[in-house]
Amino acid sequence: MTPDAVILRALRGSGDAGASGADLAQRLGISRAAVWARIEELRRVGYDIEASPHRGYLLRGAPDVLHADDLMARLEPGGVIGRDIRVFHETASTNDIADRLARDGVAEGIVILAESQTQGRGRLGRRWDSPAGRGLWMSVLLRPSLHPSAATQLTVLAAVACVRAIERQVPLRPDIKWPNDLMFGTRKCGGILLEMSAELDHIRHVVLGLGLDVNVTASEFPAALRPIATSLQAQLGRRVDRAALAASVIGELDRAYRALGSGGFPALADEWEERCATLGRRVTIRMGARELTGTAESIDDDGALCVRTEHGRLERVVGGDVSLAAAP
Amino acid sequence: MTPDAVILRALRGSGDAGASGADLAQRLGISRAAVWARIEELRRVGYDIEASPHRGYLLRGAPDVLHADDLMARLEPGGVIGRDIRVFHETASTNDIADRLARDGVAEGIVILAESQTQGRGRLGRRWDSPAGRGLWMSVLLRPSLHPSAATQLTVLAAVACVRAIERQVPLRPDIKWPNDLMFGTRKCGGILLEMSAELDHIRHVVLGLGLDVNVTASEFPAALRPIATSLQAQLGRRVDRAALAASVIGELDRAYRALGSGGFPALADEWEERCATLGRRVTIRMGARELTGTAESIDDDGALCVRTEHGRLERVVGGDVSLAAAP
Repeated sequence: MTPDAVILRALRGSGDAGASGADLAQRLGISRAAVWARIEELRRVGYDIEASPHRGYLLRGAPDVLHADDLMARLEPGGVIGRDIRVFHETASTNDIADRLARDGVAEGIVILAESQTQGRGRLGRRWDSPAGRGLWMSVLLRPSLHPSAATQLTVLAAVACVRAIERQVPLRPDIKWPNDLMFGTRKCGGILLEMSAELDHIRHVVLGLGLDVNVTASEFPAALRPIATSLQAQLGRRVDRAALAASVIGELDRAYRALGSGGFPALADEWEERCATLGRRVTIRMGARELTGTAESIDDDGALCVRTEHGRLERVVGGDVSLAAAP
Repeated sequence: MTPDAVILRALRGSGDAGASGADLAQRLGISRAAVWARIEELRRVGYDIEASPHRGYLLRGAPDVLHADDLMARLEPGGVIGRDIRVFHETASTNDIADRLARDGVAEGIVILAESQTQGRGRLGRRWDSPAGRGLWMSVLLRPSLHPSAATQLTVLAAVACVRAIERQVPLRPDIKWPNDLMFGTRKCGGILLEMSAELDHIRHVVLGLGLDVNVTASEFPAALRPIATSLQAQLGRRVDRAALAASVIGELDRAYRALGSGGFPALADEWEERCATLGRRVTIRMGARELTGTAESIDDDGALCVRTEHGRLERVVGGDVSLAAAP
């Protein structure tokens, strides 16, 4: 952990009791003057840190920015996802950065966040708006021991982890729309984009992208999206602490990813099914030129959606555009 | 087509009759002196071109090098695969170059060849020896309208096209070993490596790599490979014209790829089954930690191998390491 992460973790841990400069200096193996310099630097980027003669340093407030050290400070130590975090002020696409790192041999678990993306994208190359400071635009590099056909498991995992993280932070419960959307009713607040590099029988790496509209206000959505898009702030009526939410998402992703590695997919799938607005509903799925209509029944061991067609046949679907019929 | 490609095509087409400088100049819209300068340049890289006062220019011999213009000159016009060809003297990996071009938005069909690769690779990151001037080390960029799970079709296509091309050039008939090897008996002479970039339901691009040991002599193989590797030259007892073979492989790949695009996979699969040493044999397939033993029965519509296990169950296999039991 970096010195700033150690300091922020200590300040958060000590709360009103405060953390003494001497303690911090000892923990970090640096001088008290050097601790003070780090504190000054944190203040400069917006952290409200009080220095009390008796209690030492106290964290009074954090800025609404994503700060790698602060996110690291909030995570449980020892995780895979989040063991390295990089935050960009602006980038074309966090998925592109994660992909480039993957090709350079970087280990799995690194998380890339950006305050804004100029060329954020959703599935099938669609544009994804990523306004500055309003959401979580993040990508995670993974190197799972999965067959390419089981990659859908990661979409399931990501959806469940995000819903869990949101619920931990705010009194909201989004639905999941298969395969990759987070919804409030008919409005989308987030999406998951999984991009993989693979041989026929072997995933080399996966970049799991997440776009979550956190503090986007209704008027900030492009006019065309207003009827179908929403954000956590719009649902809740107040701003949401993005840094706390980001740390929570990273922590939940890590927990779910480790569960997947030890055979935990069935439990994730059960939770996904509970939270899924698609199951039990009549759906129409467009896959290129083909269209399939039926009732969404379940997801299978690979994360594919099983749809009962009008002819009674059960079809496995791994992608495509899903439209839900009106609720019965 | 480049001027050199036009000239080489004309020289090959006219044979002993020769192609006049005036004709070539007119066809290219350049002066006879400029034609002569191009001829000089081709001679410099090793083409044996005779200038006869009566018959004009005659091609007497070509060097054992891969030359993009010469390969283009040998292809039927109008194809997809081979509409652009780049030859490198030495590169780390032709697949890496094709992948980089794909990310830069280059259209499908470009073929990358190298006289030698310093970091050629086979499946699962295994090393592939690519000695200078001894083989075909090539990659093709494709953007097929296929679901990722149907990518195996491209391996089937590539194997069939390579076998057809070899048969057209030399009196040899290699077997196919599923999924990606070209064999003479128990010895491998070539392999196909398919690398894809995909979303869950959507291939972005595929790089189809081919490594074919053409004129590698027995003593040039590393000692460990000698019992299991062979080359066309070793099988035939004489050197093979690499350029003619390369053009033939590109031409056959193009023909098969266009057939695939118009619903021709079943015919390719039939041909593959005929040429396949794996079918009808007892096989053991290692897929990571799992091992499957049974009789290889057929390939299905997605190109997966269907194996009848000892318990009578038919299993679909899309990858893994295949060992054949001794022939019955």
